[in-house]
Amino acid sequence: ARCGFGEVIYGPGKSADLVARLIETQLEAGQDSLVTRIDPQTAVAATHRFTHARHNPVARTLRVSSAPIVSGLQPSPNGLHVAVVTAGSTDAPVAEEAIETIEWMGVPVSRFDDIGVAGPQRLIAAVPKLREASAVVVVAGMEGALPSVVAGHLAVPIFAVPTSVGYGASLGGLTPLLGMLSACAANVAVVNIDAGFKGGYLAGMVVSQLRQVTPDTCQAS
Amino acid sequence: ARCGFGEVIYGPGKSADLVARLIETQLEAGQDSLVTRIDPQTAVAATHRFTHARHNPVARTLRVSSAPIVSGLQPSPNGLHVAVVTAGSTDAPVAEEAIETIEWMGVPVSRFDDIGVAGPQRLIAAVPKLREASAVVVVAGMEGALPSVVAGHLAVPIFAVPTSVGYGASLGGLTPLLGMLSACAANVAVVNIDAGFKGGYLAGMVVSQLRQVTPDTCQAS
Amino acid sequence: ARCGFGEVIYGPGKSADLVARLIETQLEAGQDSLVTRIDPQTAVAATHRFTHARHNPVARTLRVSSAPIVSGLQPSPNGLHVAVVTAGSTDAPVAEEAIETIEWMGVPVSRFDDIGVAGPQRLIAAVPKLREASAVVVVAGMEGALPSVVAGHLAVPIFAVPTSVGYGASLGGLTPLLGMLSACAANVAVVNIDAGFKGGYLAGMVVSQLRQVTPDTCQAS
Amino acid sequence: ARCGFGEVIYGPGKSADLVARLIETQLEAGQDSLVTRIDPQTAVAATHRFTHARHNPVARTLRVSSAPIVSGLQPSPNGLHVAVVTAGSTDAPVAEEAIETIEWMGVPVSRFDDIGVAGPQRLIAAVPKLREASAVVVVAGMEGALPSVVAGHLAVPIFAVPTSVGYGASLGGLTPLLGMLSACAANVAVVNIDAGFKGGYLAGMVVSQLRQVTPDTCQAS
Amino acid sequence: ARCGFGEVIYGPGKSADLVARLIETQLEAGQDSLVTRIDPQTAVAATHRFTHARHNPVARTLRVSSAPIVSGLQPSPNGLHVAVVTAGSTDAPVAEEAIETIEWMGVPVSRFDDIGVAGPQRLIAAVPKLREASAVVVVAGMEGALPSVVAGHLAVPIFAVPTSVGYGASLGGLTPLLGMLSACAANVAVVNIDAGFKGGYLAGMVVSQLRQVTPDTCQAS
Amino acid sequence: ARCGFGEVIYGPGKSADLVARLIETQLEAGQDSLVTRIDPQTAVAATHRFTHARHNPVARTLRVSSAPIVSGLQPSPNGLHVAVVTAGSTDAPVAEEAIETIEWMGVPVSRFDDIGVAGPQRLIAAVPKLREASAVVVVAGMEGALPSVVAGHLAVPIFAVPTSVGYGASLGGLTPLLGMLSACAANVAVVNIDAGFKGGYLAGMVVSQLRQVTPDTCQAS
Amino acid sequence: ARCGFGEVIYGPGKSADLVARLIETQLEAGQDSLVTRIDPQTAVAATHRFTHARHNPVARTLRVSSAPIVSGLQPSPNGLHVAVVTAGSTDAPVAEEAIETIEWMGVPVSRFDDIGVAGPQRLIAAVPKLREASAVVVVAGMEGALPSVVAGHLAVPIFAVPTSVGYGASLGGLTPLLGMLSACAANVAVVNIDAGFKGGYLAGMVVSQLRQVTPDTCQAS
Amino acid sequence: ARCGFGEVIYGPGKSADLVARLIETQLEAGQDSLVTRIDPQTAVAATHRFTHARHNPVARTLRVSSAPIVSGLQPSPNGLHVAVVTAGSTDAPVAEEAIETIEWMGVPVSRFDDIGVAGPQRLIAAVPKLREASAVVVVAGMEGALPSVVAGHLAVPIFAVPTSVGYGASLGGLTPLLGMLSACAANVAVVNIDAGFKGGYLAGMVVSQLRQVTPDTCQAS
Ligand SMILES: Nc1ncnc2c1ncn2[C@@H]1O[C@H](COP(=O)(O)O)[C@@H](O)[C@H]1O
Ligand SMILES: Nc1ncnc2c1ncn2[C@@H]1O[C@H](COP(=O)(O)O)[C@@H](O)[C@H]1O
Ligand SMILES: Nc1ncnc2c1ncn2[C@@H]1O[C@H](COP(=O)(O)O)[C@@H](O)[C@H]1O
Ligand SMILES: Nc1ncnc2c1ncn2[C@@H]1O[C@H](COP(=O)(O)O)[C@@H](O)[C@H]1O
Ligand SMILES: [Mg+2]
Ligand SMILES: [Mg+2]
Ligand SMILES: [Mg+2]
Ligand SMILES: [Mg+2]
Ligand SMILES: [Mg+2]
Ligand SMILES: [Mg+2]
Ligand SMILES: [Mg+2]
Ligand SMILES: [Mg+2]
Repeated sequence: ARCGFGEVIYGPGKSADLVARLIETQLEAGQDSLVTRIDPQTAVAATHRFTHARHNPVARTLRVSSAPIVSGLQPSPNGLHVAVVTAGSTDAPVAEEAIETIEWMGVPVSRFDDIGVAGPQRLIAAVPKLREASAVVVVAGMEGALPSVVAGHLAVPIFAVPTSVGYGASLGGLTPLLGMLSACAANVAVVNIDAGFKGGYLAGMVVSQLRQVTPDTCQAS
Repeated sequence: ARCGFGEVIYGPGKSADLVARLIETQLEAGQDSLVTRIDPQTAVAATHRFTHARHNPVARTLRVSSAPIVSGLQPSPNGLHVAVVTAGSTDAPVAEEAIETIEWMGVPVSRFDDIGVAGPQRLIAAVPKLREASAVVVVAGMEGALPSVVAGHLAVPIFAVPTSVGYGASLGGLTPLLGMLSACAANVAVVNIDAGFKGGYLAGMVVSQLRQVTPDTCQAS
Repeated sequence: ARCGFGEVIYGPGKSADLVARLIETQLEAGQDSLVTRIDPQTAVAATHRFTHARHNPVARTLRVSSAPIVSGLQPSPNGLHVAVVTAGSTDAPVAEEAIETIEWMGVPVSRFDDIGVAGPQRLIAAVPKLREASAVVVVAGMEGALPSVVAGHLAVPIFAVPTSVGYGASLGGLTPLLGMLSACAANVAVVNIDAGFKGGYLAGMVVSQLRQVTPDTCQAS
Repeated sequence: ARCGFGEVIYGPGKSADLVARLIETQLEAGQDSLVTRIDPQTAVAATHRFTHARHNPVARTLRVSSAPIVSGLQPSPNGLHVAVVTAGSTDAPVAEEAIETIEWMGVPVSRFDDIGVAGPQRLIAAVPKLREASAVVVVAGMEGALPSVVAGHLAVPIFAVPTSVGYGASLGGLTPLLGMLSACAANVAVVNIDAGFKGGYLAGMVVSQLRQVTPDTCQAS
Repeated sequence: ARCGFGEVIYGPGKSADLVARLIETQLEAGQDSLVTRIDPQTAVAATHRFTHARHNPVARTLRVSSAPIVSGLQPSPNGLHVAVVTAGSTDAPVAEEAIETIEWMGVPVSRFDDIGVAGPQRLIAAVPKLREASAVVVVAGMEGALPSVVAGHLAVPIFAVPTSVGYGASLGGLTPLLGMLSACAANVAVVNIDAGFKGGYLAGMVVSQLRQVTPDTCQAS
Repeated sequence: ARCGFGEVIYGPGKSADLVARLIETQLEAGQDSLVTRIDPQTAVAATHRFTHARHNPVARTLRVSSAPIVSGLQPSPNGLHVAVVTAGSTDAPVAEEAIETIEWMGVPVSRFDDIGVAGPQRLIAAVPKLREASAVVVVAGMEGALPSVVAGHLAVPIFAVPTSVGYGASLGGLTPLLGMLSACAANVAVVNIDAGFKGGYLAGMVVSQLRQVTPDTCQAS
Repeated sequence: ARCGFGEVIYGPGKSADLVARLIETQLEAGQDSLVTRIDPQTAVAATHRFTHARHNPVARTLRVSSAPIVSGLQPSPNGLHVAVVTAGSTDAPVAEEAIETIEWMGVPVSRFDDIGVAGPQRLIAAVPKLREASAVVVVAGMEGALPSVVAGHLAVPIFAVPTSVGYGASLGGLTPLLGMLSACAANVAVVNIDAGFKGGYLAGMVVSQLRQVTPDTCQAS
Repeated sequence: ARCGFGEVIYGPGKSADLVARLIETQLEAGQDSLVTRIDPQTAVAATHRFTHARHNPVARTLRVSSAPIVSGLQPSPNGLHVAVVTAGSTDAPVAEEAIETIEWMGVPVSRFDDIGVAGPQRLIAAVPKLREASAVVVVAGMEGALPSVVAGHLAVPIFAVPTSVGYGASLGGLTPLLGMLSACAANVAVVNIDAGFKGGYLAGMVVSQLRQVTPDTCQAS
């Protein structure tokens, strides 16, 4: 049987009270909670009610668990994991939303920042470590060329997340979105603009399935 | 080490001679060939030169191998496989391109036709069998609602392929494309319009990785 | 002779004084008033001048009548009525605008909340009761798949109202709008983005005509 | 219980053989058949197999019944019926598709041709007779102004069908589509570009329900 | 020789000082000044420096002259003049910008408010007086149907001004813009969204030329 | 009383028979006929039936009159007339449609070809003669810059006709259309893409009114 | 060997501290710094830390050098330089961003303001001096006609910068962008909307290369 | 004085006779001719009339000179030249149009084919030779990522030419066009879709100016 993940709570328009109540229901059902796009006040108010909570204001996420929440552990070498890549530093909030989602799924994640195509040496240097991941989330705005370039170097599913970073002809993220969909590389799938949550969720699913069928991996990480 | 797949040959604008030469090079390198969007004349001309060739005129694909090509085998119950779903019968060419790609990757595939949202009973009936797949390709045109609906029933990555089937407001496939990207279900990733090849390739990658790490599956299928 | 409805007052850019004057004219002509998209201050100011007024701040509507205004009555079983359905809780303001309009027309209305395609069981459970309605208003944002799905289960006119709920590829409501227009189901008509008033008005007209030609219904409700 | 209509057969991509087989199944189930967007050759081939068939090459429809098919009867004065209106003579094919659909549903239909806004006298002259209909289908291309204008004169649901008639800024029907959705009249619902079938089906549903609840109307028409 | 008009001053981004200086230069050259899109503070500050100034805050215009400025005079019956028409009351600011421009050109102007297509009787009633104008400015938002309808009744140039009034599918004025360009009436020319100034300027030019070649009209009005 | 013009017959979809019959009706009513967008066969077939007919295959127009049709007369110096300007030679068909329309209205017309902005000397040389016209039709494709430039030199109404000449970013005429609407010159009005007929009709109306109020002009031309 | 330029620092989202640190690193590497799109507070804060800094609040740029920064020197007659041209005064911020970039590259620059097509005499007067430049940056909004017109007079590369100046049909700069790309003149290249930095950088590169290969120019300017 | 180039003849819609006449006029004026987008028949017909003609059917160009036309010479090492790069083999026609244009200008050109981002090793291998060019034309369709990537490796002006190669979300070239305009690299300028002629002309101008100011280069090549 496949082991699923609890439903993610979409924060906008929900009061701190409502958010807290939804979290409690999930905790009682034995599930860890993830709230996305939560504003700082609501997050802080909700945080106070729980023993084990983690609010990431850059990612605009809130996680609550019945056990302590550990974050930022690098995956063991060759351990099954997701890589999250950003083209520029302005793409960080979307990448962090992806990372919080992947960690909430219990999947290890490695991170590669600011390796956009304008500085090609940084990307080339990262390729060997990128090749160790079983699924990659690539977050990029402006022309959104990075997923195509990364996909040319790897042989695993790439989940491309276009961001609304940029101006003029980048049309609030539509241009990188359309570009990523037109990528000539075959292994690029695309999610909505700024949808770090979705990119992380899909990559996390891929690795989570791998970990379930791997005899000695689940215990290892 | 990850085992990759040979580069797929994009048919348009290539002569039968050139296609044949590219195929020969791949065969010599020990790789099976896949040509997409090939026109019938070129396919027939190229087919005559090889012992083991399969031309699917609906899918517009040509496959060539050093061994006999078997097609259309249903996956063994609970065996690791991809499911390919169409909303309507006009989506068949795109679905068949996905299936040829998945089979070329050596991955088992099951097929569910014409279970679009207009006839909801057919979809509901298919859900139990759909749940056995480890990745799903959903092919749909017009409003493109099917991936959202399928995703609500399953807990695996859905690769949604919008098609140019429809008229007027479906804008040659842009409307289902944008709809699939806006799906509220978290497990829907999207590829280009009519890109059955990409949808199949990504789903095939997911299952192929699973089969590699599974002790007794690779032999099983 | 067909019995019409008074002209609806569009709130934006009208002072509380002007709104009150327009309402008075309608009351004198024996018509109940409906003001849409009214801001809270104007609504409260106008409310104070009338004995029987109902301000719904979520719907942004104001209704004034010469008699007490009753709201929220469930229609009697099998009584002629409209059903109003939402995909998610963020669609509530648009749905409430539809409901206020239908009740202002003197037509009974039933309500089905948060039965979007991401949680298909909730929709399937609602179908038997939905089938009792003679016209249905479906309010949905993001990919706007719900009207297609509902229409597949019913044989009455569906008035689909796309909402601006969503981000990125949902293009402020254009994506669900185009998707609803492309629905493969034949019984889906579409109104403008966030136009709960129009969806309610059209469904209300359908049921109102039915009630007029039905011998024992008009008295019944 | 509501009495539904058989599923309509969408012609494109279906052989004459397949179409004939689908029709036979429906006839055996006691339902009259309607095929839309059928090309002339397929229609003629299919027609030869049935005793009671009607092929309308302008509408691109084929109807088959177990009884003789009567067409073009004007509704009795004040009898419940649909009115179908065109702005110009180039809109005729879309209007005829609507009319064939309505007649297939057993609903009477009246017709008003070429009463577009460029010649306002013709429209004004038609208003008294238009007021006798219980639902109206308005078919218009170019700027698509006609539904707004007709809706200003009537108090019943208007189903607006934009057509691809026009050039340049009419964007293949997108401009009248968007204009009809933006109509300031409240009683205008919109269907897809050139979707005469949908406009007719919805208006037919409205009148069909009315005829079912009306004691002496069904026999009357 | 043709008698031209002074250059109009576009207000945004200009200080009160700069505006005043530009006006002074024009007055010294014997020309009346017209400033458009001026914000209230700048207008009031500039007004104080001149004896004969007229600030219209609804139109966002400022006019300065060496002689008293008369406004709002109805044209003498059959006198050569422009008619300015609005579809709804929210279109007033754009219409007033047109009227200020026409009066600044010394051309008489008549005004017809709120005669949109939703209330067709008001338009029909206005037609006889509208026929007395030699050029007409029609200001309309939402679906922008009014220019087509007015043009069907008249035989003079219609300058259509689409407005950004509306929501959703009216796309900030793009929908009425495209609709007006697609008008089937031959005598409709279109200017930019909300460009009351341009519509007024063009209609004013037409009538101004007429008045110059008419022996006894120039003195008459 | 204003003297109008007969209704123009839109050719597409009309048989030679129907066109001939419509022309006869107009001749009997004392009006000269103008058919636009007529295909060559229909035009030739219709031409044979009338004594005084003129078919312009470049303009795709057919004119029929009860008197001989004179064409191509240059207007007398300073006589009231329209000027028609093209940016490039590929714009000729649209310009000729405008000219045929203006001549059908009995208005003199002068012509300026291929004076686009890429060769600025030709335009500058033409300015003195252009200044003699009372209304100007400017026909241009690609970026559509010519109307702005011409308008900067003249003080009469400019009717800009964007053409579908160009490729890529000119979007089939949408780019020059939007550019002409955005012209910073105040005296530019715009009609639909390739709508030479409309541009000519509007300019013809302006000059026709001028000629009617001018004591000695009507006889002069 | 080609002598490159330091990487430009994109201001948005960077703290004054971070900006200062990046500048220091560049100064230590012997490079002059250029920060674009910097907000006033951050610029002022960062300025205080350096001896030779130049903050241009109109251009929203900050430059820091190890030597005094000279600005605004007119190029010597016939010296190799870039010309920067604006259509209107509202385009100034974008033009100034270009100029700051060019001066930071050590390339002389001449400036031509407000010579848009609406006042053609000003442009014609400027042509002789414009012809002395080896590359030209043309900054224009609204319909963006100026680059085409300038290009017709010159035989050097024109870098066209569309601006978001305008309203309605200018679509936030998309219309001039598309128009400039469609220019019939062959020597027009285009950069992103409001991207003064890019236009200046490209023109500066052209002239910088010229100066490097010219024996006596480098010292001359 | 700057030495210009003859005007390029745009082929579409011109007869072989007209083309030949225009060429003769240019030859008499001492200029070599370049015709673009010429169809094969016209090209062959025109070719027969001249001693030194070169028709490139892939590029759709015709060149005519008073001297023999040499083509395809590789530039001498470190000689001033343009590099033309393609992403894929389907981009060849556009690249060849660029190359014919550059050679017509007398500028040496080197060529790099099929080095798109999907195969990153090929691009990296080409970088050292690419660095020898003084201007680069990059031709790419689909997502158009190549100019950004190339620009990251070089310090000269890149002229990016988007092509209409691709399907679905590449929108006939609009997606690579918008992507190239949004490139984060500063040294990328963009021309129209498929406009190989323009890209080549601009790069040729840059190198031509360099060659003119370089003492020993002009003679060298
Ligand atoms: N950032 C996000 N973007 C899109 N969908 C989300 C996001 N966060 C949560 N969701 C989805 O929204 C739904 C929950 O919505 P709600 O019931 O309103 O909390 C679930 O189906 C989630 O998968
Ligand atoms: N080329 C054209 N473009 C747009 N409208 C036209 C054109 N030619 C004729 N018309 C208009 O089309 C209408 C006649 O259409 P019809 O009744 O079909 O002949 C009249 O209102 C004409 O003004
Ligand atoms: N105004 C601007 N528009 C576009 N790109 C810019 C701008 N200013 C700097 N850049 C680019 O942004 C990059 C620097 O980004 P960052 O590393 O975030 O400072 C460099 O590649 C610059 O060429
Ligand atoms: N392929 C092309 N794309 C765009 N413009 C071109 C092309 N070929 C030639 N031109 C331009 O078209 C003009 C020549 O047009 P024509 O006078 O019709 O021959 C010149 O300004 C050329 O620069
Ligand atoms: Mg960076
Ligand atoms: Mg089906
Ligand atoms: Mg929900
Ligand atoms: Mg008509
Ligand atoms: Mg009104
Ligand atoms: Mg030309
Ligand atoms: Mg100016
Ligand atoms: Mg390749």
